Amino acid sequence: MDKLYVIKIGGNIIDDNMKLKSFLKDFSSLSEKKILVHGGGKLATRMAEELGIEQKLLDGRRITDAETLKIVTMVYAGYINKNIVATLQSYDCNALGLSGADGDSILAHKRVHPGMDYGFVGDVDAVNSDLISTLLKKNIAIVFAPITHDQQGQLLNTNADTIAQEIAKTMSDLYDVELIYAFEKSGVLLNADDDSSVIPEINPSYYQELKDKKKIFAGMIPKLDNAFAALKSGVNKIIIGKAEDLKQITEGKSGTAVINE
Amino acid sequence: MDKLYVIKIGGNIIDDNMKLKSFLKDFSSLSEKKILVHGGGKLATRMAEELGIEQKLLDGRRITDAETLKIVTMVYAGYINKNIVATLQSYDCNALGLSGADGDSILAHKRVHPGMDYGFVGDVDAVNSDLISTLLKKNIAIVFAPITHDQQGQLLNTNADTIAQEIAKTMSDLYDVELIYAFEKSGVLLNADDDSSVIPEINPSYYQELKDKKKIFAGMIPKLDNAFAALKSGVNKIIIGKAEDLKQITEGKSGTAVINE
Repeated sequence: MDKLYVIKIGGNIIDDNMKLKSFLKDFSSLSEKKILVHGGGKLATRMAEELGIEQKLLDGRRITDAETLKIVTMVYAGYINKNIVATLQSYDCNALGLSGADGDSILAHKRVHPGMDYGFVGDVDAVNSDLISTLLKKNIAIVFAPITHDQQGQLLNTNADTIAQEIAKTMSDLYDVELIYAFEKSGVLLNADDDSSVIPEINPSYYQELKDKKKIFAGMIPKLDNAFAALKSGVNKIIIGKAEDLKQITEGKSGTAVINE
Repeated sequence: MDKLYVIKIGGNIIDDNMKLKSFLKDFSSLSEKKILVHGGGKLATRMAEELGIEQKLLDGRRITDAETLKIVTMVYAGYINKNIVATLQSYDCNALGLSGADGDSILAHKRVHPGMDYGFVGDVDAVNSDLISTLLKKNIAIVFAPITHDQQGQLLNTNADTIAQEIAKTMSDLYDVELIYAFEKSGVLLNADDDSSVIPEINPSYYQELKDKKKIFAGMIPKLDNAFAALKSGVNKIIIGKAEDLKQITEGKSGTAVINE
């Protein structure tokens, strides 16, 4: 099976134009098939503020109301996605940006949660591997914005980590998939304040141990839960590491490898 | 050769949600291969106003400065494009939205004009027929936003009529292309105020005669110039007609046919 990288970049890289360009240059130099999933960054929040759209929070969680969905569709699927694609083109990487509505590439449904309305937030049902592999075979790097649809005409704001995981899972039937979560830290850290305290490998029992000792930074828990779930569903390799170190991550020299055993 | 419709819809349809949905329903019911090119509508202008970005005009023409480009990228390639795609999906039409940067589908250069800087406005150099025909063969309807790129990382605001014409020209090598300009009037009118005064057919000599008599509405002249240029470059059939009459237009029962003889 051909190798396929599914790489997720987080918001803080997107907010830093120099870091983003440098990351995209590294991404474009990967010779294997590749998919990039990007988060949103602060631009959507800033835009909402400038337009006087109030961010609604419920129990500390952001609610995607109709106006917020409009903003994130514009910013994620429009501004950020197209600028990433154009930048990759300038590095001779033939990239193509998609939302989940495009080609029905990611089908989702509006989240149903007892006693809590998240608004227009999507939970993923299916990834269209046929379209994705058609594009990959043409040596196109696909760039996903974290927006999906429900096949009923509704766009849905969807977690980029989850999108990366679902794509990695589905594409594992056709490719030898390596899923990389690229963010601001060098990996899963033993000490959140010390970027050199990277755990080189983490398996379920060690993860449990660290959680019991409250040694895992709360923000890492959904990422690691996603990663272990992806491993169980057939993804071969998952690495969490620093966006600036993409090359070293792909060479196995940086980041935290999430493993089964 | 298979039939291919290249259909351009104008801004006033995009600004009217009911008309847009009705048009998209008609579009999705066309069984032939199809490409939709959409303009921008008033949302970009409204958004720029709300964000306090001044629209710059030079000799009556709008200048696309960096801030305006950001807005049109968000609104055209993000909000409008993705909502059209999601709506088509709800009508069982598998649609996929592209800007010209995506898959290098439309390459352009920043307009060079002596004594006049239009800003980030693109003139089209090439259309990627290979990518377009790959998607069409998968029975995907392609939806183009009027944004292109220059292969150097720069997105460019580009006239949607021109994009439709350039796509129609290039795809005429592979398909029997019918180019439809769908807008608010029933076709080219003899009397701009009388929607029943449609000219059923217009050829170059009749066009010249009408121009000499100042019987052509000024706004129609670039559209017709584009249409005659497209005919010369191999597009088989061009019709200008009312968006609400899409079905009748495709049946040859409505609109103005632009012809060579």
